[in-house]
Amino acid sequence: MSLAGKSFYMTDIVTIKEVAARDGLQAQSVEISLEQRQELIEALSKAKVPELEIGSFVSSRAVPQMAGTDALARTLPRSGPKFSALVPNMKGYELARREGIDQMAIVISATEQMNQNNIRKSLVDTFAMAGEILSRARREGVEIHAYLAVAFECPYEGKVAQSVVLEQASKLMRDEPSRLVIADTIGAANPSAVKSMMAELVSQYGTHRLGCHFHDTRAMGLANVFAALDAGVRQFDSSAGGLGGCPFAPGAKGNVATEDVVMLCETAGLSTGIDMEALLQSVACLTQMMGAQQGGRAHYWLTNNWQKISK
Amino acid sequence: MSLAGKSFYMTDIVTIKEVAARDGLQAQSVEISLEQRQELIEALSKAKVPELEIGSFVSSRAVPQMAGTDALARTLPRSGPKFSALVPNMKGYELARREGIDQMAIVISATEQMNQNNIRKSLVDTFAMAGEILSRARREGVEIHAYLAVAFECPYEGKVAQSVVLEQASKLMRDEPSRLVIADTIGAANPSAVKSMMAELVSQYGTHRLGCHFHDTRAMGLANVFAALDAGVRQFDSSAGGLGGCPFAPGAKGNVATEDVVMLCETAGLSTGIDMEALLQSVACLTQMMGAQQGGRAHYWLTNNWQKISK
Repeated sequence: MSLAGKSFYMTDIVTIKEVAARDGLQAQSVEISLEQRQELIEALSKAKVPELEIGSFVSSRAVPQMAGTDALARTLPRSGPKFSALVPNMKGYELARREGIDQMAIVISATEQMNQNNIRKSLVDTFAMAGEILSRARREGVEIHAYLAVAFECPYEGKVAQSVVLEQASKLMRDEPSRLVIADTIGAANPSAVKSMMAELVSQYGTHRLGCHFHDTRAMGLANVFAALDAGVRQFDSSAGGLGGCPFAPGAKGNVATEDVVMLCETAGLSTGIDMEALLQSVACLTQMMGAQQGGRAHYWLTNNWQKISK
Repeated sequence: MSLAGKSFYMTDIVTIKEVAARDGLQAQSVEISLEQRQELIEALSKAKVPELEIGSFVSSRAVPQMAGTDALARTLPRSGPKFSALVPNMKGYELARREGIDQMAIVISATEQMNQNNIRKSLVDTFAMAGEILSRARREGVEIHAYLAVAFECPYEGKVAQSVVLEQASKLMRDEPSRLVIADTIGAANPSAVKSMMAELVSQYGTHRLGCHFHDTRAMGLANVFAALDAGVRQFDSSAGGLGGCPFAPGAKGNVATEDVVMLCETAGLSTGIDMEALLQSVACLTQMMGAQQGGRAHYWLTNNWQKISK
């Protein structure tokens, strides 16, 4: 069955960037210490996630959950996943560089209003800043993942036209990010829109410089991942346990869960290289930290059955 | 966005066959009276589901939850959904006919072992019986939906090869069922296998005589629905509230939830004709009957947000 599936795909290796320690934790109201963040990063490293976002170099007044990412970076082991961090501007870039981080995420929103609310900058200024960071990063051998946030729908401006995103993508691609990530920041995308968008981007730029970032607010996270896979995308952000949703909204999930994406890929004959048992251990670690059960949509099934089917 | 999505599709009308009153209820241990089944059918009819499976004409010893389907059939209104019933054999066909049912489901398993365990008949005998029912139904103007159960994986024989299902499909199609339904009875399919299978069947038989029936055990229900939609399938079984899972296995969902499928289709620009508000009312009705919260994967989001986005 998996062999039949493979014929749809360009390669059968999927690269997952684990974002629980950044996009996941930053949405939580529970206080998490540096030691706990370190523990989470260790657990996720043991699960062999290929890329791991450790935090962001942002103002600790704006996002107190991310305070101390510099100190955290100094504790990272030399081997294991590729460690990554989010930087909001050139200052963040420099702080991250100083700690030896050489894969960074920068974020531009697809809409003016979201961009203003998120970083208090116009889109014109933000694209200019992105261009500067991208040029410098190219010279300094730093990988940049450029994110286009709210690429399907914006909480302030509503649906975003595909043509708008394609034009912004083309602008960014001129500055050669190592990856352009199309992000459904609020979990409002549907798989038909995802397939349409990603198929167009793949036809223009090939697959190796494209990624997707989905949230699972409307339970369409896995359908969106499949739609992107089917369009040829092979790089995805996801969060262990689906961490990232508002803890006060029962049922309103956060990022698409890493364990769900691994299951989807592996049952379809695609390899992620991730150790599911160890990954579920890191979900258990998150459950303990949050004081509430964490886990993606298939968490119950996976914890009871994965060992049986993976043999 | 929905317009862009449409370009992938042959038609933008999706026909949903609501199966909560049959596949949903038959898995429950809670005792449900005929009056309650009638109440559920009324609620679902108000939601404008185009097809509604009311129950099965099977031995009440084997499936006590379905006892009295004949009496139930006599209470059905003349207008509203197309009412449907499952029949296990020619006797069931005759009982259903006597009550005026003119759309019926017959089930053949893709594997010998499942077929034996399900209806204590060999596959050879079951295909022969299906042939007899199909010929008679053609003469008598009765629509038959022929199901191939465990078409991706069997709990006894493991993975089912696509070639096996294609051959069985070809055998059934010679007897001209009004619909051939590929059923992932245990919720073990992945979207890449679904797309591969359904694309092949669509290329052989077109879309209007094909349907899919998914369970959501591994949380891949919506991804599988999208994969089938993307292959051109436009007829799906689903169950209000995702009813159908074992009530003793928390998180192990049953059939893919009608409200989730409606959301997926409608946000992708495809029409189901179903009234979401009324559908969520019938989920509330099920919650009351079961004495436990029912609802699909997106139930929380839908109950809080559907009105806003559907305006």
